Amino acid sequence: MLCLTRSMIVSAAVFIVSTTGAFAEPDPLPSWNDGPTKQAIVDFVIKVTEPESGDYLPPQDRVATFDNDGTLWLEQPMYVQLAFALDRVKELAPEHPEWKKKQPFKAVLNGNMKALAASGEKGVAELVMATHAGMSPADFQTIVSDWLDTAKDERFERGYTNLVYQPMLELLAYLRSRGFTTYIVSGGGIEFVRNFSEAVYGIPPAQVVGSSIKTKYEDLDGEPTLIRLPEMNFIDDKDGKPIGINQHIGQRPIAAFGNSDGDYQMLDWTTSGEGPRLGLIVHHTDAEREYAYDRDSTFGRLDKALDAAPDKGWVVVDMKNDWKEIFPPKE
Amino acid sequence: MLCLTRSMIVSAAVFIVSTTGAFAEPDPLPSWNDGPTKQAIVDFVIKVTEPESGDYLPPQDRVATFDNDGTLWLEQPMYVQLAFALDRVKELAPEHPEWKKKQPFKAVLNGNMKALAASGEKGVAELVMATHAGMSPADFQTIVSDWLDTAKDERFERGYTNLVYQPMLELLAYLRSRGFTTYIVSGGGIEFVRNFSEAVYGIPPAQVVGSSIKTKYEDLDGEPTLIRLPEMNFIDDKDGKPIGINQHIGQRPIAAFGNSDGDYQMLDWTTSGEGPRLGLIVHHTDAEREYAYDRDSTFGRLDKALDAAPDKGWVVVDMKNDWKEIFPPKE
Repeated sequence: MLCLTRSMIVSAAVFIVSTTGAFAEPDPLPSWNDGPTKQAIVDFVIKVTEPESGDYLPPQDRVATFDNDGTLWLEQPMYVQLAFALDRVKELAPEHPEWKKKQPFKAVLNGNMKALAASGEKGVAELVMATHAGMSPADFQTIVSDWLDTAKDERFERGYTNLVYQPMLELLAYLRSRGFTTYIVSGGGIEFVRNFSEAVYGIPPAQVVGSSIKTKYEDLDGEPTLIRLPEMNFIDDKDGKPIGINQHIGQRPIAAFGNSDGDYQMLDWTTSGEGPRLGLIVHHTDAEREYAYDRDSTFGRLDKALDAAPDKGWVVVDMKNDWKEIFPPKE
Repeated sequence: MLCLTRSMIVSAAVFIVSTTGAFAEPDPLPSWNDGPTKQAIVDFVIKVTEPESGDYLPPQDRVATFDNDGTLWLEQPMYVQLAFALDRVKELAPEHPEWKKKQPFKAVLNGNMKALAASGEKGVAELVMATHAGMSPADFQTIVSDWLDTAKDERFERGYTNLVYQPMLELLAYLRSRGFTTYIVSGGGIEFVRNFSEAVYGIPPAQVVGSSIKTKYEDLDGEPTLIRLPEMNFIDDKDGKPIGINQHIGQRPIAAFGNSDGDYQMLDWTTSGEGPRLGLIVHHTDAEREYAYDRDSTFGRLDKALDAAPDKGWVVVDMKNDWKEIFPPKE
């Protein structure tokens, strides 16, 4: 016969309760300063996850979508994927002597950012096609991985996957701990972002939605192969975000997180749905610790969405005042 | 003080063990006859899930893709989605008096299947555009749901969502119980299949890959809305299956299940990957309990893939001999 004293039973109960988190838990958002922004997030999560709240939603409805550039990691002085394309042009230049005389490649090789900017969206698209196509998705993954392992941001002297926002990492983990499924919905390339999304954000490849180029299937001497083609397939920005979400996820999110006018439609579509909704904009207001930019920025321009936020009920994060930390601590 | 007798403790232990499945478990595939087909499936699952097998793969690698028509549910005497389109043409006919004189609509309204067949793929595409576009995805879901709730297969006198293959339902559940993520990869419409995939197969909307028409985003007087357009976006068949999987899931499956030549490329790409792989073809050999068809069938033609199966090492299910039951029991 096994006999348990009352104190043994209480200890066991405390152990069970503390490991399942039913007692007071540590702050899930320690890098967020206390205040209305943090409170709005926590209130929303409690509202949709507490069965007695009246706004309870089952886990399958708890879909949250996150923009990547400027929302989860930095996008200044240029998109990270553009920095990758520029480095790639330099690396491939010996195989392309014609690039020395041809824009926008010439501008990249001469470090002439003004001429590159003058080439506009068309020029950038040309750079992307020349550097992102012609290989299998697996080979592209290796190229991106190798680059991310070595490339460094000049100002912060850190690799790009360290220049992710610590408060947003905490927010992703907090939502997942409350039964949310978290997706990235990026204007950047789907196969570029998939490279690091699981390791850095805890978001597996199937939960990344993004822009894409076309892919061709070929049987190469009995070896089935996919080849990335220099042709646009889908642009996951602005109108493309709700379209991409509908295509990929098949349901309207209840929460959306962005930082620029490219996220306007995703935010609007998400928060126009019935029931409890959360729309949130990261406003870059911290020139000292990161960057301060909005209406006039080339990358991550935030204008129309900032004006609409009060009426739409979107929460605007003031990076300088709402975030205790910007990036994860250096190792 | 709480005292437990030895038998109370043993009972509790037995309860815990039996509910967590640590003791001998029941056959996970009861509708499959014992034999080499069933054994090949079980051997594969054990191989990739037992840590000491030498072929162990972590759960994130355990991606399994299933064709839908003819693999998970019946596709004779015609694809279910085509039956939906025909019924829809009849329902919408009063709003389209011009259809009485215009093929392929005239053929549908007169029940002239020969004239409909003569209209070919172009005719079928016209029917799909006329019946699947012009509404929001949510309204399309309602239309499909209402139809599935009432439409019945003539021969079996059952609704279509009851005409799913019981052995395949068991296989889906078995794989998921072993840490696999199961996806549908259908030549059929992604938003058509999503309608019932979760309720019928336990596969949520985000895990359905399929053919699609284009979608437009519009702000209708401040109400953000998606509208389905009468324009093809992606055909998820043949070459399109590996392309769709790569786009949507972002990784190569380790197991693929199909029944026709439309699945050849998915099977080939899946089983050409390194490490343990399973390719399986459902061969419809049971005219009495379901249908017997392969090389000459209009729907679900199985010719090239059947010839390739022995060389490729694909398992071929002989429906008549391998399956104890075809459909779930009638309620």
